[in-house]
This record gives sequence, C-alpha cells and structure tokens, in this order.
Amino acid sequence: MRFIKVGEFGQETPAVEVDGRRLSLSSITADIDGAFLSNNPVAVVEQALAAGELEELDAEARLGSPIATPGKIVCVGLNYRDHAAETNAEVPKEPVVFMKDPSTIVGPFDDVYIPRNSVKTDWEVELGVVIGAEARYLESPEAARASIAGYVLSHDVSEREFQLERGGQWDKGKSCERFNPLGPVLVTPEEIADPGNLNLRLSVNGVLHQNGNTKNLIFGIEYVIWYLSQFMVLRPGDLINTGTPAGVALGIEGNPYLRPGDVVELSIEGLGSSKQLFVAAP
Amino acid sequence: MRFIKVGEFGQETPAVEVDGRRLSLSSITADIDGAFLSNNPVAVVEQALAAGELEELDAEARLGSPIATPGKIVCVGLNYRDHAAETNAEVPKEPVVFMKDPSTIVGPFDDVYIPRNSVKTDWEVELGVVIGAEARYLESPEAARASIAGYVLSHDVSEREFQLERGGQWDKGKSCERFNPLGPVLVTPEEIADPGNLNLRLSVNGVLHQNGNTKNLIFGIEYVIWYLSQFMVLRPGDLINTGTPAGVALGIEGNPYLRPGDVVELSIEGLGSSKQLFVAAP
Repeated sequence: MRFIKVGEFGQETPAVEVDGRRLSLSSITADIDGAFLSNNPVAVVEQALAAGELEELDAEARLGSPIATPGKIVCVGLNYRDHAAETNAEVPKEPVVFMKDPSTIVGPFDDVYIPRNSVKTDWEVELGVVIGAEARYLESPEAARASIAGYVLSHDVSEREFQLERGGQWDKGKSCERFNPLGPVLVTPEEIADPGNLNLRLSVNGVLHQNGNTKNLIFGIEYVIWYLSQFMVLRPGDLINTGTPAGVALGIEGNPYLRPGDVVELSIEGLGSSKQLFVAAP
Repeated sequence: MRFIKVGEFGQETPAVEVDGRRLSLSSITADIDGAFLSNNPVAVVEQALAAGELEELDAEARLGSPIATPGKIVCVGLNYRDHAAETNAEVPKEPVVFMKDPSTIVGPFDDVYIPRNSVKTDWEVELGVVIGAEARYLESPEAARASIAGYVLSHDVSEREFQLERGGQWDKGKSCERFNPLGPVLVTPEEIADPGNLNLRLSVNGVLHQNGNTKNLIFGIEYVIWYLSQFMVLRPGDLINTGTPAGVALGIEGNPYLRPGDVVELSIEGLGSSKQLFVAAP
C-alpha cells in the first residue's frame, strides 16, 4: 500500500495512492502518524477501499511528506563502504548514530533552503524506514521486521562545514531548516520484495552523482533497527535514515557544493522520485 | 508563574502552582505545549486566576514532566570549564551541540532505567530552557530573551560507554529510555531574577557530587539560543539542556557509575528539586 499526504504546506490530507488515483483517508485518520501506523493500517484501508468510501483528491495538488512529524529522526552515518572511503573515514565497527531535528522534514518537491553563511551544503539520498511498532531491546535482527511500517525516499541534506568543522558533533550540520525532504510516498513492506536490494540514485542539475544499491549497506535495515533498540526505544512514527552511498559533494574532486538555483533529483526503486530546487534561506 | 503537570504517567493534567496549591489548567489548554507557551500563557492564566475559575488538584498526586513532549531536545556539551577539564576535553571554541530523543523525558520523581548492558550510567544536572517563540537567525544574543518560555530543572542522564566508546557520535549514550527526568516545574522568566546566576546541585545517595552555578557557563543562555538559531529553527515547546558543571562519575576518581538502588537528588535555585531511584531496565 502507498500512503501519501496531499495539500498545502501544513494542511495536508492523508491519502492512499491506488492505480494513480489519490483517495482521502481523512475519514479514517487525521494523519499518517504513529497511532495510525501501529494499528493495522493496511487492513483498515483495504476495508475502506472495498466499501468504496474514500473520496478522490486532486491528482495535481502538492504532495507533502507522507508521514506526520516523527517523534525523532535517527540517522546512520558512514553505512556504505564506498561513502566511508570517499570521506576518508574508517569503515565503522558498529553503526554510527546521530539525530536530526524532526521539524526539518518537508515535502518531496518543496524548495530546500541553503542556510545563511553556508558554503558546504551537500546532498545524500537515503532509504528511510518508518517504525510501525515499538522496538525496545529486540532479541534479533529478524525480530525487527515486525517493527517496520514502511519505506520512504529520504534526502538527508547536510552542511559539511557545520557538521565537521564547527566543533564536536555532527547534528549541527544536519538539522538546518528544510534539510529533510521526504517522500513522495510511504510504501508498506508487502510491496517491497527485497528492501536490501534497491537502487538509489541522485543527480544534480541532470548530472548523476550517486548511484548505489541497498545491498551495499554495511549494516542492513533489520540489523540497524535491532542495534538501535539496544540503546533507545524506537516508537511508531519514528524515521530512520539508513545512510548514503558514495557520490556526495564532500567526496567529489572540486567539492561542487550546492548553490542557489541548483536542482537535485533523487529516486529509489519502488519508492518513487523527488526533486528539490535549492534556494538561499530567506 | 509556575507550570506543572499532575497525574498518572501519560495522563497528566496541566496545572499552575500558586501558594502551594495546584490549580488545573485543563479548561484552558490540553497540555503545556508549544501552542500554549507561545500565546501569552502568563497573561491567559492570570486572567483565569483572577476569575477564580481553576479547579484545585490533589496536592499529593504524582508530578509528571512540566512540559509536553518537545519537538526536539538540543543539548550543549562541555559548557562548564570545570566539566570540560574533568573529562579531559578541550574548552570548546564554539558550542558543542548534540540531540536527545524527546521521548526520554519522564517526571521528576519517576524511576530511571539503567540500560541493559550498561556499565557506565552517569548523572548530569542541567538548567533546561524551554522555547516560547520561534528562534530563527536571531540578530543578537539579546534578541534571544523573547524566545524563552521558562526554565526547568533537567537531568541529562548519560551512558558514557555508549556515548564515547561505541563509535562515532554522542547521541547513542544520551537517548536511552527514561534518560531525561524533567521538572518539577517550568518557571516563567519574570520569576527568575538572573538565570545566569543560579546554583545547581546534585547528590548520589546523599553525597554531594555536583555543586555549580550557571554564572560559570562558557556560553550563556542567550548566546546559546542565538547560536543555535543560526543552524536550526528553535520552535515553541523545544527544550535546550544547557550543559552540566563538574562532578559527574566520569570525572571522579574510581568512576562511581550508577547502580540499581542508587538515588540521585538534584536541584536548581528557584526551580525546585527532583529525586530519582535508578533501577535495572525491565
């Protein structure tokens, strides 16, 4: 099943995409949030679809982030061998974990702001995993499967000077306004044959820079969820950004960081594509 | 004005403390959240108090965290010179920033869980600052004053092995379940003559370990808010933990990390005191 949110910024209607049609879920839930995702959303929506109860929405209206603002965004750093190499980082022995302000999430086609005083705004295409059931001290990576509500295309925009050269921890370069375009769609697990074998691509102004596959994740999706659950409680609605493959500006000769007017397009197999114009922060 | 929340875990009633009485705010707001804090809460509640409209609550009932789950918790690391020294860290040139899972917040007298497999659970008394108005690219530290909803006693519980020895970033040792006891009370700015001159104290099993004063903050409260606003948008309801003074287990000879059965008591001048029993995570 494919969940989306449709409408103006901050006033989106939750919906389901069926055969190219957008059908409103506002009679079922106020948002694609933890409460909805933890209560058999696929079965609930299938029943409503069978009853023919769902109102059709404008196929041309803006798409927002397909999920409600999460309780937290947990990110895994350096989780592709080729990306660790291009940033001159060692391949990590266990997952590198950092966090991102949940209010950075915007829709898949919204403008992204290059922060004031930024000189190193960079891109990162990532597979996002949304939690559907509490994960707390899971016994095994296999047990993590039941915690997954779905998968989503995530853009973990990063400011490298803020992240790496301004003291201490990475979060400072990860939480700038609008730094996490999400979507277009949250796809539930039964539609993704193998989340561990999905192509990810990202281009800037039409030039392909990232072209990876989730089969090259150092720590796979279920392992990451199991691992995180030993340190924190993952709750329904939380988002995990699982890491980015090689090809970011930080790793390319000449470091072609993003400038106002640049257009970034990204996609993951089965999860659709997104496109953002980068503009100077107003 | 002194805001509190009263009642069972997860079902607290927002309230105001007046002359030792607890008066319900449920007729005014569902929670002490960003929406409430950004709409002149002191004036609104003063009006209700004058009208004698507020129902009195049980003076013995449990206190929860005095604020709703924030959109984010931003923490400043190594922000007291003596604490930086005791952890063998350099005094930072600019604020060290990290984040903590907002769902770690519990009430001021709730049990705290020592994580499974933890050997280095540590304490940190901190002045918490709650945001009342959006702070985004503030022009000066002075401009930050208008963004402050109030002050709160915060316990930034930390697992040092997870934080420092398990690869990469600190967040992993800061976001364990129940790692942020908060309260008892959110005190609004007009009641705190000088937030830059408050004593902070913390004892374990009756032995005083931390005894600091916010006048020794390397980066003061307004500077921190101004600084953060250059990197991220602070929104009403967000919590900032401003850093801890010397005296944590990491810095004491013999490193007396917390064990099940230990009792930690902490206080900040004007913001009350809290007390937590540490127990093994169930």
